[in-house]
Amino acid sequence: MVDTFSRSCPMPIMEHDTIQLAHGSGGKLSADLISGLFLPLLGNDILNLLEDQAILQVPEGRLAFTTDSFVVDPIFFPGGNIGDLAINGTVNDICMSGAQPLCLSAAFIIEEGLAIKDLHRIISAMAEAAEQAQVTIVTGDTKVVDKGSCDKIFINTTGIGCVPADVTISAGSIRAGDKIIISGTVADHGMAIMTSRENLSFETRITSDSAALNSLVARMLEASTAIRAMRDPTRGGVATTLNEFARSSQIGITLFAEQIPLLPEVRGACEILGIDPLYVANEGKLITIAAPGEAEKILGAMRQHPLGRQAAIIGEAVSDHPGMVTMETGLGGSRIVDMPVGEQLPRIC
Amino acid sequence: MVDTFSRSCPMPIMEHDTIQLAHGSGGKLSADLISGLFLPLLGNDILNLLEDQAILQVPEGRLAFTTDSFVVDPIFFPGGNIGDLAINGTVNDICMSGAQPLCLSAAFIIEEGLAIKDLHRIISAMAEAAEQAQVTIVTGDTKVVDKGSCDKIFINTTGIGCVPADVTISAGSIRAGDKIIISGTVADHGMAIMTSRENLSFETRITSDSAALNSLVARMLEASTAIRAMRDPTRGGVATTLNEFARSSQIGITLFAEQIPLLPEVRGACEILGIDPLYVANEGKLITIAAPGEAEKILGAMRQHPLGRQAAIIGEAVSDHPGMVTMETGLGGSRIVDMPVGEQLPRIC
Repeated sequence: MVDTFSRSCPMPIMEHDTIQLAHGSGGKLSADLISGLFLPLLGNDILNLLEDQAILQVPEGRLAFTTDSFVVDPIFFPGGNIGDLAINGTVNDICMSGAQPLCLSAAFIIEEGLAIKDLHRIISAMAEAAEQAQVTIVTGDTKVVDKGSCDKIFINTTGIGCVPADVTISAGSIRAGDKIIISGTVADHGMAIMTSRENLSFETRITSDSAALNSLVARMLEASTAIRAMRDPTRGGVATTLNEFARSSQIGITLFAEQIPLLPEVRGACEILGIDPLYVANEGKLITIAAPGEAEKILGAMRQHPLGRQAAIIGEAVSDHPGMVTMETGLGGSRIVDMPVGEQLPRIC
Repeated sequence: MVDTFSRSCPMPIMEHDTIQLAHGSGGKLSADLISGLFLPLLGNDILNLLEDQAILQVPEGRLAFTTDSFVVDPIFFPGGNIGDLAINGTVNDICMSGAQPLCLSAAFIIEEGLAIKDLHRIISAMAEAAEQAQVTIVTGDTKVVDKGSCDKIFINTTGIGCVPADVTISAGSIRAGDKIIISGTVADHGMAIMTSRENLSFETRITSDSAALNSLVARMLEASTAIRAMRDPTRGGVATTLNEFARSSQIGITLFAEQIPLLPEVRGACEILGIDPLYVANEGKLITIAAPGEAEKILGAMRQHPLGRQAAIIGEAVSDHPGMVTMETGLGGSRIVDMPVGEQLPRIC
């Protein structure tokens, strides 16, 4: 991890204060936007060539390849903005396969009229997040749509990573007895977005957990390669990820309610709003399933990393109720944790 | 090339006729949309795993990596729709490096309320275009935004291709004397969009040239590897691509107006609307720069391919006026062909 943000650029002096349709035309204003704002912040030997495609030298082996579009509303929120979210989200999808990220693409759809200073703030956050995750953006695209045809800015990032030869992680490989580990507190990102969108104020401000998990994953794989499955519980939260695991492996999963890490302010906000934190999005957490004999070793490695200090074993895979997730509550009761049916919170990421 | 479209699926029977916010939630309706519509049309061994990332086996060597977001308005137009455009556009950006496409990602941002039958038509066009280009979609993402926050549907496709070891194509490698070759008529796509958007009716309907050029490029590379530079003149048209070439190689380019292939109906529409066809987008054409001794061989190979029948040498690189593009008109005059400054036609692709 890189601690300091070594790259910055002052607000560029541009002909306009806001994004014009012509910034997406492929002509002179597009070229000004790229040379004045994108390249000073994101530039590198490959991106600077400005070819329509990046050419990468890759070793023989397995590549992880993943895509995500980010449409979060609001675009600025406590703990981050759409820019760092777009980097971290795709880095995380890559490294959930055990791969280390190699590079990303970034494609922007911008609404006519977006303030250049807002775009500068977003691209600065992308540059900082990319540097922290030690990943480069090697190719990109910018489209501008007329006012009213999108909401401020949408960002797609697509990434490539190299999967180590000895690692095979798959949602379908979970066995009874395996332990369910989460890397930290749940529901922080979703509740940060929700409270900031609704202008709700609590005593302690809830902050998004947006973070790149690739260095945490590297630490875990150093400790043990006996990781069966791994996924970041974003949209749909922990409940959705575990239901996907249960279905893919045709195994039951039992959660222990009291073991699930939850910040007091997030618990409070969820109670007030009547929301189950298990269904709320996270953007800097992972769930991993470990063979029983290896779980403590992996947990120990996670707790030594800044992003895994509050890691905990929150459940286990069972041969009962295959394909289903249940939760044991403190009072000895048990309930089904189903896939969410409706939409709790649109545009969370 | 595959002549017939072997994959199809009837309109899926779904709970709703239109896209709901919950179709993007990551929960049950998302799963229904994926299993009912996306997988029957686009599915393959990798996509069907529904992991958050595709795992690909790649040979050692150079990869081409490229991204594009498609925001075309209208989404259905003569000669295609946003679905096939999204496949062809990214396949073309890959193969302009000389690479053959390996696979694509597809990420959708859909407006709440889009008719499922429109989405079905778009995904069907993607499936058909992918099959024709012999490329698979191996990973994807779907976001739904509230009504009014985007215009119907935006699609990002990002692609990977393998660059043959003996091929080096770069905008910076053009030398004086090189020939400028175009694969066919110019301005078809842009004028198809413009006339359909404005509801202009001409005697002959103008049709988009949307097509995947990878089989044409393969044919060209069989004929000669002496291709210096290659690019598809999309946004900003032929004028923008040639200006980019002239700047990258610090060389002058001279065009011969009378050699540029132009359909009579496109010429007519451009004249009526006062538009210079050199600045209008193409979606199934390429410009290549060939060493003088190889140009006729490459041109001959292009003309044997259905997408290159009207290929023509339209100019040459010169040592005069480095960084600039000029055009010799039929009457012995000459004018500068500059980068476009404003936006002629937003949301062309």
